[in-house]
Amino acid sequence: LRLAVVGVGLIGGSVALGARERMGVRVSGWDPDPGALASGVVDEVASSLEDAVCDADLVLVATPIEALRPAIGAVLKANERAVVTDAGSVKRGLPEHPRFVGGHPLAGSEHAGAGHARADLFDGAPWFLTRSHEAVEELVRGMGALPHVVDAETHDRWMALTSHLPHVIADVLAEMANAQEEQAASRIHSLRSLPRGPSFRDATRVAGANPPLWRGIREANADFLGEAIEDFTKRLEDRR
Amino acid sequence: LRLAVVGVGLIGGSVALGARERMGVRVSGWDPDPGALASGVVDEVASSLEDAVCDADLVLVATPIEALRPAIGAVLKANERAVVTDAGSVKRGLPEHPRFVGGHPLAGSEHAGAGHARADLFDGAPWFLTRSHEAVEELVRGMGALPHVVDAETHDRWMALTSHLPHVIADVLAEMANAQEEQAASRIHSLRSLPRGPSFRDATRVAGANPPLWRGIREANADFLGEAIEDFTKRLEDRR
Repeated sequence: LRLAVVGVGLIGGSVALGARERMGVRVSGWDPDPGALASGVVDEVASSLEDAVCDADLVLVATPIEALRPAIGAVLKANERAVVTDAGSVKRGLPEHPRFVGGHPLAGSEHAGAGHARADLFDGAPWFLTRSHEAVEELVRGMGALPHVVDAETHDRWMALTSHLPHVIADVLAEMANAQEEQAASRIHSLRSLPRGPSFRDATRVAGANPPLWRGIREANADFLGEAIEDFTKRLEDRR
Repeated sequence: LRLAVVGVGLIGGSVALGARERMGVRVSGWDPDPGALASGVVDEVASSLEDAVCDADLVLVATPIEALRPAIGAVLKANERAVVTDAGSVKRGLPEHPRFVGGHPLAGSEHAGAGHARADLFDGAPWFLTRSHEAVEELVRGMGALPHVVDAETHDRWMALTSHLPHVIADVLAEMANAQEEQAASRIHSLRSLPRGPSFRDATRVAGANPPLWRGIREANADFLGEAIEDFTKRLEDRR
């Protein structure tokens, strides 16, 4: 088996390391940022997307969400037999192609980039797939993750509620707390800061995480996120 | 120094243990539930509130929030020289008395009751006080906690935003996820459950915690919690 990784960041780099260390797979990689490949997570640094994927049996596309659609299209064109999967957080809007299987591992870290890649990043993590596919499920299990097959729409609604909405909530809570603390400090001369308890720290742990990445995710799932916000605010108002 | 604890639950029991183990203080305790005192966290089990506090220099009232005001009143009457403090999550609505100092440790556990009391529960935790008072601050520091003096209104606004609102949010998110999962399972025959990622787990960690306790807290701070919900939903709608 030969694996190619297009977009060697935290996720792509961790899959590359995992596939090499745990599955004995040879991995080629390409990233538009040459620094990403200096980290040594792949066996073979390709000089173009086409070079990276031409000999692969399986290709993982792990670019930022805005770049997924064109990158997947380019991979399907450059290699006419490989199975292609991705790692994006939104599963609609991607090519419908018999060789493409949408994927999304529920794993990450506050540290982005291949420099933080770890072979064990996916141990025990759920990994969504938009359809059942033996070779892709084998890769997922090889990473120590658990495949969950579910259609793109069900996935995106679920992510809007259980991931994208909690991120927006965290940002808003952190923004409000900073504003209220500043106001209190302007009123009370001796006050420098107000302590934040464990429930606030839990609720805001993901606040401010990787803004460009999250902007892309929110935009790609804007319809379902909007519906989730509407339902959520209604239920919250009912509890006043 | 003699300490009396009125209401021997997780908080009262942990202060009793901490005061005995770390400060060498003799502690008497009273709780309407005789089972609470069977745990052995106090030196002396009193048969009434009056018996518990009559010889004390310092009294901690750690009852559920609804019972605080009458209990503090009864303590101030039963002992005419002791300093009285409490551990309630809302600091307005309590007696204004020269011997009363409002208190609120930002610590807890998902396990209620004196049976889960621990002398180290407050290590490193912030502990709000509504005014500066040497003996009470000494007790707080003796518990390993950090005193933060701030007026009752500033405290209650801050708690509405950083604790009570996150609890309501956690409940609503958990309720929505359960509803959506059920709906998806009714549509997709093979679906048993949908995995919940780390940001959802963080955001809902406190969901469903001790409902009667939290109902009391929300009611006691309903005005500021309502304002926080209003401001929060406005900001959230702005992000749609």
